[in-house]
Amino acid sequence: MTEKQIRVLLENLKEGKITEKTAFEYLKLLPFKDLDFAKIDHHRSLRRGAPEIIFGEGKTKGQIVTIAKEIARYNDVLITRTNEEVFKEIKFFFKKAVYYRIPKTIVIRKNKKNLKKGKILVLTAGTVDIPIAEEAVVTAEFMGNRVEKIYDIGVAGIHRLLPYLSQIYGSSVIIVVAGMDGALASVVSGLTDKPVIAVPTSFGYGASFKGIAPLLTMLNSCSPGVAVVNIDNGFGAGYIASLINK
Amino acid sequence: MTEKQIRVLLENLKEGKITEKTAFEYLKLLPFKDLDFAKIDHHRSLRRGAPEIIFGEGKTKGQIVTIAKEIARYNDVLITRTNEEVFKEIKFFFKKAVYYRIPKTIVIRKNKKNLKKGKILVLTAGTVDIPIAEEAVVTAEFMGNRVEKIYDIGVAGIHRLLPYLSQIYGSSVIIVVAGMDGALASVVSGLTDKPVIAVPTSFGYGASFKGIAPLLTMLNSCSPGVAVVNIDNGFGAGYIASLINK
Amino acid sequence: MTEKQIRVLLENLKEGKITEKTAFEYLKLLPFKDLDFAKIDHHRSLRRGAPEIIFGEGKTKGQIVTIAKEIARYNDVLITRTNEEVFKEIKFFFKKAVYYRIPKTIVIRKNKKNLKKGKILVLTAGTVDIPIAEEAVVTAEFMGNRVEKIYDIGVAGIHRLLPYLSQIYGSSVIIVVAGMDGALASVVSGLTDKPVIAVPTSFGYGASFKGIAPLLTMLNSCSPGVAVVNIDNGFGAGYIASLINK
Amino acid sequence: MTEKQIRVLLENLKEGKITEKTAFEYLKLLPFKDLDFAKIDHHRSLRRGAPEIIFGEGKTKGQIVTIAKEIARYNDVLITRTNEEVFKEIKFFFKKAVYYRIPKTIVIRKNKKNLKKGKILVLTAGTVDIPIAEEAVVTAEFMGNRVEKIYDIGVAGIHRLLPYLSQIYGSSVIIVVAGMDGALASVVSGLTDKPVIAVPTSFGYGASFKGIAPLLTMLNSCSPGVAVVNIDNGFGAGYIASLINK
Amino acid sequence: MTEKQIRVLLENLKEGKITEKTAFEYLKLLPFKDLDFAKIDHHRSLRRGAPEIIFGEGKTKGQIVTIAKEIARYNDVLITRTNEEVFKEIKFFFKKAVYYRIPKTIVIRKNKKNLKKGKILVLTAGTVDIPIAEEAVVTAEFMGNRVEKIYDIGVAGIHRLLPYLSQIYGSSVIIVVAGMDGALASVVSGLTDKPVIAVPTSFGYGASFKGIAPLLTMLNSCSPGVAVVNIDNGFGAGYIASLINK
Amino acid sequence: MTEKQIRVLLENLKEGKITEKTAFEYLKLLPFKDLDFAKIDHHRSLRRGAPEIIFGEGKTKGQIVTIAKEIARYNDVLITRTNEEVFKEIKFFFKKAVYYRIPKTIVIRKNKKNLKKGKILVLTAGTVDIPIAEEAVVTAEFMGNRVEKIYDIGVAGIHRLLPYLSQIYGSSVIIVVAGMDGALASVVSGLTDKPVIAVPTSFGYGASFKGIAPLLTMLNSCSPGVAVVNIDNGFGAGYIASLINK
Amino acid sequence: MTEKQIRVLLENLKEGKITEKTAFEYLKLLPFKDLDFAKIDHHRSLRRGAPEIIFGEGKTKGQIVTIAKEIARYNDVLITRTNEEVFKEIKFFFKKAVYYRIPKTIVIRKNKKNLKKGKILVLTAGTVDIPIAEEAVVTAEFMGNRVEKIYDIGVAGIHRLLPYLSQIYGSSVIIVVAGMDGALASVVSGLTDKPVIAVPTSFGYGASFKGIAPLLTMLNSCSPGVAVVNIDNGFGAGYIASLINK
Amino acid sequence: MTEKQIRVLLENLKEGKITEKTAFEYLKLLPFKDLDFAKIDHHRSLRRGAPEIIFGEGKTKGQIVTIAKEIARYNDVLITRTNEEVFKEIKFFFKKAVYYRIPKTIVIRKNKKNLKKGKILVLTAGTVDIPIAEEAVVTAEFMGNRVEKIYDIGVAGIHRLLPYLSQIYGSSVIIVVAGMDGALASVVSGLTDKPVIAVPTSFGYGASFKGIAPLLTMLNSCSPGVAVVNIDNGFGAGYIASLINK
Repeated sequence: MTEKQIRVLLENLKEGKITEKTAFEYLKLLPFKDLDFAKIDHHRSLRRGAPEIIFGEGKTKGQIVTIAKEIARYNDVLITRTNEEVFKEIKFFFKKAVYYRIPKTIVIRKNKKNLKKGKILVLTAGTVDIPIAEEAVVTAEFMGNRVEKIYDIGVAGIHRLLPYLSQIYGSSVIIVVAGMDGALASVVSGLTDKPVIAVPTSFGYGASFKGIAPLLTMLNSCSPGVAVVNIDNGFGAGYIASLINK
Repeated sequence: MTEKQIRVLLENLKEGKITEKTAFEYLKLLPFKDLDFAKIDHHRSLRRGAPEIIFGEGKTKGQIVTIAKEIARYNDVLITRTNEEVFKEIKFFFKKAVYYRIPKTIVIRKNKKNLKKGKILVLTAGTVDIPIAEEAVVTAEFMGNRVEKIYDIGVAGIHRLLPYLSQIYGSSVIIVVAGMDGALASVVSGLTDKPVIAVPTSFGYGASFKGIAPLLTMLNSCSPGVAVVNIDNGFGAGYIASLINK
Repeated sequence: MTEKQIRVLLENLKEGKITEKTAFEYLKLLPFKDLDFAKIDHHRSLRRGAPEIIFGEGKTKGQIVTIAKEIARYNDVLITRTNEEVFKEIKFFFKKAVYYRIPKTIVIRKNKKNLKKGKILVLTAGTVDIPIAEEAVVTAEFMGNRVEKIYDIGVAGIHRLLPYLSQIYGSSVIIVVAGMDGALASVVSGLTDKPVIAVPTSFGYGASFKGIAPLLTMLNSCSPGVAVVNIDNGFGAGYIASLINK
Repeated sequence: MTEKQIRVLLENLKEGKITEKTAFEYLKLLPFKDLDFAKIDHHRSLRRGAPEIIFGEGKTKGQIVTIAKEIARYNDVLITRTNEEVFKEIKFFFKKAVYYRIPKTIVIRKNKKNLKKGKILVLTAGTVDIPIAEEAVVTAEFMGNRVEKIYDIGVAGIHRLLPYLSQIYGSSVIIVVAGMDGALASVVSGLTDKPVIAVPTSFGYGASFKGIAPLLTMLNSCSPGVAVVNIDNGFGAGYIASLINK
Repeated sequence: MTEKQIRVLLENLKEGKITEKTAFEYLKLLPFKDLDFAKIDHHRSLRRGAPEIIFGEGKTKGQIVTIAKEIARYNDVLITRTNEEVFKEIKFFFKKAVYYRIPKTIVIRKNKKNLKKGKILVLTAGTVDIPIAEEAVVTAEFMGNRVEKIYDIGVAGIHRLLPYLSQIYGSSVIIVVAGMDGALASVVSGLTDKPVIAVPTSFGYGASFKGIAPLLTMLNSCSPGVAVVNIDNGFGAGYIASLINK
Repeated sequence: MTEKQIRVLLENLKEGKITEKTAFEYLKLLPFKDLDFAKIDHHRSLRRGAPEIIFGEGKTKGQIVTIAKEIARYNDVLITRTNEEVFKEIKFFFKKAVYYRIPKTIVIRKNKKNLKKGKILVLTAGTVDIPIAEEAVVTAEFMGNRVEKIYDIGVAGIHRLLPYLSQIYGSSVIIVVAGMDGALASVVSGLTDKPVIAVPTSFGYGASFKGIAPLLTMLNSCSPGVAVVNIDNGFGAGYIASLINK
Repeated sequence: MTEKQIRVLLENLKEGKITEKTAFEYLKLLPFKDLDFAKIDHHRSLRRGAPEIIFGEGKTKGQIVTIAKEIARYNDVLITRTNEEVFKEIKFFFKKAVYYRIPKTIVIRKNKKNLKKGKILVLTAGTVDIPIAEEAVVTAEFMGNRVEKIYDIGVAGIHRLLPYLSQIYGSSVIIVVAGMDGALASVVSGLTDKPVIAVPTSFGYGASFKGIAPLLTMLNSCSPGVAVVNIDNGFGAGYIASLINK
Repeated sequence: MTEKQIRVLLENLKEGKITEKTAFEYLKLLPFKDLDFAKIDHHRSLRRGAPEIIFGEGKTKGQIVTIAKEIARYNDVLITRTNEEVFKEIKFFFKKAVYYRIPKTIVIRKNKKNLKKGKILVLTAGTVDIPIAEEAVVTAEFMGNRVEKIYDIGVAGIHRLLPYLSQIYGSSVIIVVAGMDGALASVVSGLTDKPVIAVPTSFGYGASFKGIAPLLTMLNSCSPGVAVVNIDNGFGAGYIASLINK
């Protein structure tokens, strides 16, 4: 709630337009809907620029459908870390629902959105990083961004990066998805003045330690201009890139 | 070097405006000046939106001064992680040099910069986080940003955050500097649609592990819209915030 | 054994009421029943305020039933980390046995207990934390406590917490179950003067490291008044909360 | 702020007893005093049962004194992790200030407090754990508790624990401070029905890893009824023990 | 090979009793038999006091049988970390082979061994630690030791240990198998002058970290007289206990 | 691309032998073929001494076949971390393809290669290390090296190493594959003047931590002359050994 | 206290030889002397085979002297991890006190002890490991053992070990002190049937991680017959070796 | 000792050219000189291609001088991790001794060595990595190699690497010294067919963790052809590079 909203509420109350009880209830009940096992935050799309997203992992099919129905009353719906079985259930209630197989994500969109002006560029170091990258792509598109992608340009053959320089310079934010040594974020950042959001991935040999190695690499990037989200968190990268691309 | 620059170079060469040797030397020598122990990257301010910054830690006084002189030929200079002793030496050569005591940073600015339109907001959870926050402030200001700051509003008294909501909504990017439990980044991000750059700090009791605890907290933020830089890396936060604030 | 019990024993011995051999055997044999692969501690409900609890994981069905029978001779029985298959076996012997599906826990209660006066409040940050929270709920109720619960009020929308302030103020102990950034414990603790028992959970993206991230967050809580139990240890949280609620 | 306080405020406003602006300012300004580098939380003693405590480490002498003066306007003052030099400065302004050398803590108490009924018992495994234990003792006494202490009864000679059983049974909460193998918390908890707050300490040979070894031991206590605070955090232990002892 | 054996060999060679080539071949070929994928060390029972043991994990059924046959030509055979399927195959070739189901171990013994004089005592903290303990038991018995065992006497009820003191004092070496907090090793060691070999086990809640917690506890035992073998390494504990019991 | 190649290109351009557009396209397109999800690097065998290798793990069957076809246009093909199912698909297109079952590797070789002069020796400490060792063997042979191997000569019976000294002295590079205590690399290196490439493996008891223990052992080798590749990375060891063996 | 001692006490009580109060006090007070900050365990030399040892680190000079005086009433005294300054103080009270400079240990011995029959052999891998080894030597000699030592025979030149084989075979227990790769323990154990107590040390390059690397190496020894004590814990190694050497 | 040497010895013995006792003594004493606290390995320069090197850290001045004198009887001397004070002492005995200030290394060379044919190239990512790089340089030159060096060409400006391609192609082995993100090793390796020895360094911001971040980066290099030595171990890199450069 903004300062202004509080002021208006107090004003209305003082002028007798609303009762004290109403004011209190308003303050208390408005922001979310209580489903007992989940509290839906209907104000989030005003407050955050995106409706509440459903993180599918660890939730039952029934819980996901119930939450999706509640969100869908006012907003579009994005469900991440889900699967085809959940999608069948969702499809039954939402004819417009679409399932993205590689990033395992469901989108329910009511009507077309206007696209933002800037462009988000998503890069991967290897082929195995594509599912995480696609999660970022779907998220960013869901939030109204134009997205371009270039896959498999890791630093083991750094010259492969060069033909794409003009695409890099033409974007507003760059998401770099990389496992193993994670060095691609540093290299890309060193070549441009765009903010780079780095996503470490958990693939690779033993001492990758499920993504800790590229996570550390990215945090220690010797090129400033890199910030990092959690391991395999393509969704988080797409989300913050969208907030940046305004 | 952009694709376009390569094209122009090749064109000039073909038309005989420059010799083949010149073209080659140009490609090879222009981008940096070799000081043997350091390579100065004069093109960086074109390419990256900020001149090369000198990370003072681990460099000798002589090395810092030599690098500073070389950068100063074309650009303003920022020296981080330095100290008063180095400053005395720098001051001898650059009358305009200014030393910021709390973030231990030196700035040599030739002439006023036009400020960017947006505003960067820097928050700290505690008083001990201030030096790191000030490093972010100096860096962001050096790169032409307007900066506001609110210190000591950690989550142990979350109500202290509320009076500052309008300031939060009025900024373009938010830097959150926090040690101990690092929870402030999640809380702030949950209240706004601005990108949050989180800086974990290394202060606190035993199991903070020199900042690993808040680092993990921030990477695992349950509110999307948070990206993280390295522990105590106020400079990195100021730098990427400046890239975002365009 | 309390000092008093030893004194009585010695007194009886001195007065010839019991033989020396009896005294020694009494000291040696009374406190537990030896099942060879397990020693049942019948005195625990006197000594500890709760009968010995059976941690089901890693024990065979046969072992669990044998231990349960022994405990049930004098006490109610609580079996945690178990499953429906074990329950079928237990149900065969104990008609009153009840299985709680979400926290995977069996309760065998002989007769109604008087409830303690205070109230334990169990909070979760997300929907995925509910099974661990329910383990705490069942444990605390088993030990005679009244329990209230509020689920899915994580810090990504901290305003969702506010309507529940009066519930928070009205409880004796608060259990906070949270994964990912684990920040809820700090925030709740900062708003109240009740002791907070924090339970980190192991869900979330990569760098949650199976719960280490929220564990560290909670240990480093910048709000004093928080103490932590092991990752996913809902049982332990319910147990100590019950000891506190006296 | 409790629900009730908000209701009263709204009521007063509606009845014209206060202006809308006053209500807003009240909501905004009351809870804390802004010292720029620190926000003093005057409401904390109402809300939390103890005034805001000053964590001395990482703060300058000037900052500590300024914060102490502000707190002292309405409350007693506790400064932890400080030193004799700071004390001299504090003593200059507060004649009643007392310095506790072993736990490096300053107390400024205005007038006697009534002691709470219950008793807190503080145990250490070894002699080297005493400074941390004393931090817990000073904190608990500052918050109005009666405290007893038994030092150096580690599990290497478990029989040394037995003469103190009656003291253990007579307390409301037990704080166990232990480094090295940290096993004392389990052993004590197994003998009683009181909640045990365990404090791992950072002393010992190499693989103690600055307290991680006893921290893990305590988190994995095979006796339920143990909750853990951060390594060397005697203050935190004293604080939550005081919240429990009501 | 001992110094004496080398001397004898050289002597024989010098006196012409054997040829130089024989001496060389003797030195080279005798100690082991090369199966290409495994080198059988027939001298080990002379050199080490026990024949080479087969660690079953990661070896194919065929490899195990081939190695077992080679060892069995001169020695008894012990196969650890194996399973019933391998046993069926082994049984086909060795009628005397016995399979121990709980520690998943096969023993092929040719004829009765004389038992050593001392006694090895194996303790477990919980019921879940029994399989690891049984691996120690089978190993120690295989190597000619008398073994006694007491299971489920963990420190959560330390008084359960007391009736067994005479058994503890009557043994030569004590093996303590414990997971979770691993405190039993310290407690037992503090009560006796026998060497204690501690085996951490990998069962328990989250922050046990697959046995690292009890491993650290045991390494940091505040009672000297404890040495530690690897996590879940019951075999290693039985082996060194047998070397000690001479 | 070497400096020389750039010079030639520029020369040709200047002399009008090629157009500017051609020059640019040449620079851009030649080095790799874009398969959208993968960029094939046809120049690698010139630049690196070996064609691009396909790391099979995490790639779909379809992706692997497509990449293999592209590489096979100019080069031999090596696919690591794959399985029999992929092989069936590959065999359909490449009659010459061979599958190595133990190291799970596919080789497609067009015609015989001349062998290099030096010899690579591959040692393992145990039988379980053989699959990783075989990955190194196949890789090294694929790259044109003669390879010898000695398996199961771990330090638990160091005398087993001695008969192989002449083989050790006769090789150019030595690959040591070892898990558990990883000590074999130090011992072998201490006996010879050949570079030793050490490969830690992930087999063994608990505190091997999936290969971290031998990794650290090898990094800390007290014998200089040892360098380390990633855990279980037999391929990497074979590759660098081949680069060394020139 | 042994079972027998309890029986005698109960007998005396029953026969009226002692009063009930006396019996109780006896049980309570006998085993140790309470110095408030330390509890001296006079029974330890009966129970444990060695008097209580004073771990000097973290104790004040005054505390050490007070404890030493109390122990010296009935027993010899060993103070580890101490320094010359403490020694001067000790020397003032105990003329017979001897300071060992390299292991920083003080011994106060009243009269000659009979030496045990067996022999303890102490080996080091390098020269830097000598201080830790000497701590083991002094401890073992203090407890009545004959000790031999061989220093600097690390595995980087494993042939240096061979001349000492007869010394190895002639000892009862072997202590191996090694940092860096810690492989010496495995190698020595593989050559003998004596129990090996391994002490990892904290010297070496970066990834030794203050001794964790050799600790893991030793825990993962591929030769059974090795047990490990804490990093740099020469005292602990000497102590348990002495318990074994009976 | 090689197989051949043993054969000759046995032959001589059989033919009566030497006595049995002489043979035994020869076997025993020849390889090293026992200084009690150190065993000098005079055969090493034959066996290993370099004399034994003295690792100065953790050795006393007296120990270093004694060892140096012994080595210098037959070989050149290299002392690493030492300081100016030790050098003064060394200089007193060896007039030819030279001290290298940046890598803190002493060299005592008797007479000029013939240089090997190949060339070792040493690269650093930053200026702070120079001391470690220089340790590699001194070591490699000591062992008879020609060395070239290029400093400060980290991946934050990857174009800075390009002018040095011909130098990279002209070397036999490349040593890459890099801290922070350590990506330089991957990038360089991806451009060439030379073996790359990577040295992680311990400089940088918090989450570099004293070099663990670049260590992991290098182990996970997505470009095969990279092997790694320990953190800050310039000496080890120079040593193995020299073994490779034959």
